[in-house]
Amino acid sequence: MSQTIAIDIGGTHIRVASYNSEGTSPVVHHRTRSHATEPGVYDRLVQAIDKIWSPEVTAIGIASPGPLDPYTGTILATPNIPEWRNFPLAPNLSKHFGVPVHLDNDANMAGLAEWKFGAGKGHHDLVYLTISTGVGGGVISNDHLLQGFHGMGGELGHMIIDPNGPPCGCGKNGHVESFSSGPAIARYINEQLNARRKSSLQPHPNLSAAQVADAALAGDSLAISAFARTGHYLGIAVANYLAIFDPSILIFGGGVAQVGDLLFKPFEESLRKHTFHPHYLDNLVIAKAELGDNAGLLGALALARLALRAE
Amino acid sequence: MSQTIAIDIGGTHIRVASYNSEGTSPVVHHRTRSHATEPGVYDRLVQAIDKIWSPEVTAIGIASPGPLDPYTGTILATPNIPEWRNFPLAPNLSKHFGVPVHLDNDANMAGLAEWKFGAGKGHHDLVYLTISTGVGGGVISNDHLLQGFHGMGGELGHMIIDPNGPPCGCGKNGHVESFSSGPAIARYINEQLNARRKSSLQPHPNLSAAQVADAALAGDSLAISAFARTGHYLGIAVANYLAIFDPSILIFGGGVAQVGDLLFKPFEESLRKHTFHPHYLDNLVIAKAELGDNAGLLGALALARLALRAE
Repeated sequence: MSQTIAIDIGGTHIRVASYNSEGTSPVVHHRTRSHATEPGVYDRLVQAIDKIWSPEVTAIGIASPGPLDPYTGTILATPNIPEWRNFPLAPNLSKHFGVPVHLDNDANMAGLAEWKFGAGKGHHDLVYLTISTGVGGGVISNDHLLQGFHGMGGELGHMIIDPNGPPCGCGKNGHVESFSSGPAIARYINEQLNARRKSSLQPHPNLSAAQVADAALAGDSLAISAFARTGHYLGIAVANYLAIFDPSILIFGGGVAQVGDLLFKPFEESLRKHTFHPHYLDNLVIAKAELGDNAGLLGALALARLALRAE
Repeated sequence: MSQTIAIDIGGTHIRVASYNSEGTSPVVHHRTRSHATEPGVYDRLVQAIDKIWSPEVTAIGIASPGPLDPYTGTILATPNIPEWRNFPLAPNLSKHFGVPVHLDNDANMAGLAEWKFGAGKGHHDLVYLTISTGVGGGVISNDHLLQGFHGMGGELGHMIIDPNGPPCGCGKNGHVESFSSGPAIARYINEQLNARRKSSLQPHPNLSAAQVADAALAGDSLAISAFARTGHYLGIAVANYLAIFDPSILIFGGGVAQVGDLLFKPFEESLRKHTFHPHYLDNLVIAKAELGDNAGLLGALALARLALRAE
């Protein structure tokens, strides 16, 4: 029986797993530290694949941080792995292992996985948003993964919602990610603390959104207002996604989305206020991601299977 | 030989035309005043179709101002035709004429037409933007017209690019249309004139973007700055469309887009500045719409033919 290998490349770990032709439970699964900033990431990846390799493997799918080119399988420049610049990851692996290798970015792959195996099953128009260190998007439109001409579509976190807004991790200003990522929340708190707003929190360069969430849950009003602000801007962003894609389901993944009502109550209020037309909200499902840490791996699996079927 | 009837419903005119199975030159063509704000628009439409009806007609396609539901063929509420609120236009015509009737909004249909017959032929990922009284969008993604769950996707003019921006025709704030439509340009000029900026123009409630364009072409610095501002915001908007859709071609239609360099030089500068990643611009085609006033009609034709083929 033919097998597919799925790979999820993260900043801290590389995960590899092999699957039989229909299942979503891995036959074997292996996890190794990526040591992403040190040389030899590619060699460690090959060794990890070797550990689970079998002659039945007919395709490999990979979820990796971008930006990348899914059509040539090249990593353009991923912030976490400085060694990989214009690096032909998929062609190199394909040559080494003798099977087709398919690659796309982690947020697209998580969106694809939620559509095929998770919260979005049965929907035709889906917007997946992951909110953690960055804000990433994955879009299914008309039963197709949105990739675009250069394979760089669906970068929902880098939509400008206020040209005069704070800086984004990417260097531009006023992106969704500038307002609603974990670091954006921590930066806002630090700014407010430095402006002498009262809070149980102390200014700190390594302040995390998780610490802000703990303070908010304990009743800290500045921390609560930080999530209200995040939810407000997220509502503006999602109002735009509705006008643009008109999805039947919105799926939220990522650590920041775990905070619950602190974020989602102000989000929903802002969304209702900013939505271009109330009809977009009729029967719209707003759901949490179901696949957790496995989303990247399962998306890579789905990508490889889609490609096999298209051949 | 079977024929298809295409209809373009506008605020001032209704156009109907019939086409043979492959051609894009009408067999017959008829144009009548819509008298949109007076009762009887539907009856005038039926009479116009009767004038070109033949027993060979097997399908009807319609481009209409929205918002509308393309799946049920219902006009929700179009500002120009107050009589049509939740009006089942396609089902009514289908019952009357005994053939399938397909309906979508005018901007989607113009985008579809430019893709099938105009500037966008051969592209797989296309963003069409019409800039006139409003700003409308039509998107082809992965060789599919983007319609969405409620059929209200692709409303590119109602993307928020500054939550504190000026009001939009729709009542919300800071939409692309709030900055870059004809009325937005005229309103900006009136505001600046009322704030005593010098210009050859006089404040007037009916000032048009065409008058502002004439003044700009004659060297009026306020008029020039109005188009520079419009281009600036349009660059922000299009940077977002690139990050979201990653198209291979951008097509501009509508009267305001005819002004040329006055708008497009500042637009291109702003686009380069705001684009999330320069790779989006590699081999991106920026083109003018080719089909002019026929875009709606030809889009309606394409829609009806696509539906025939899908049956």
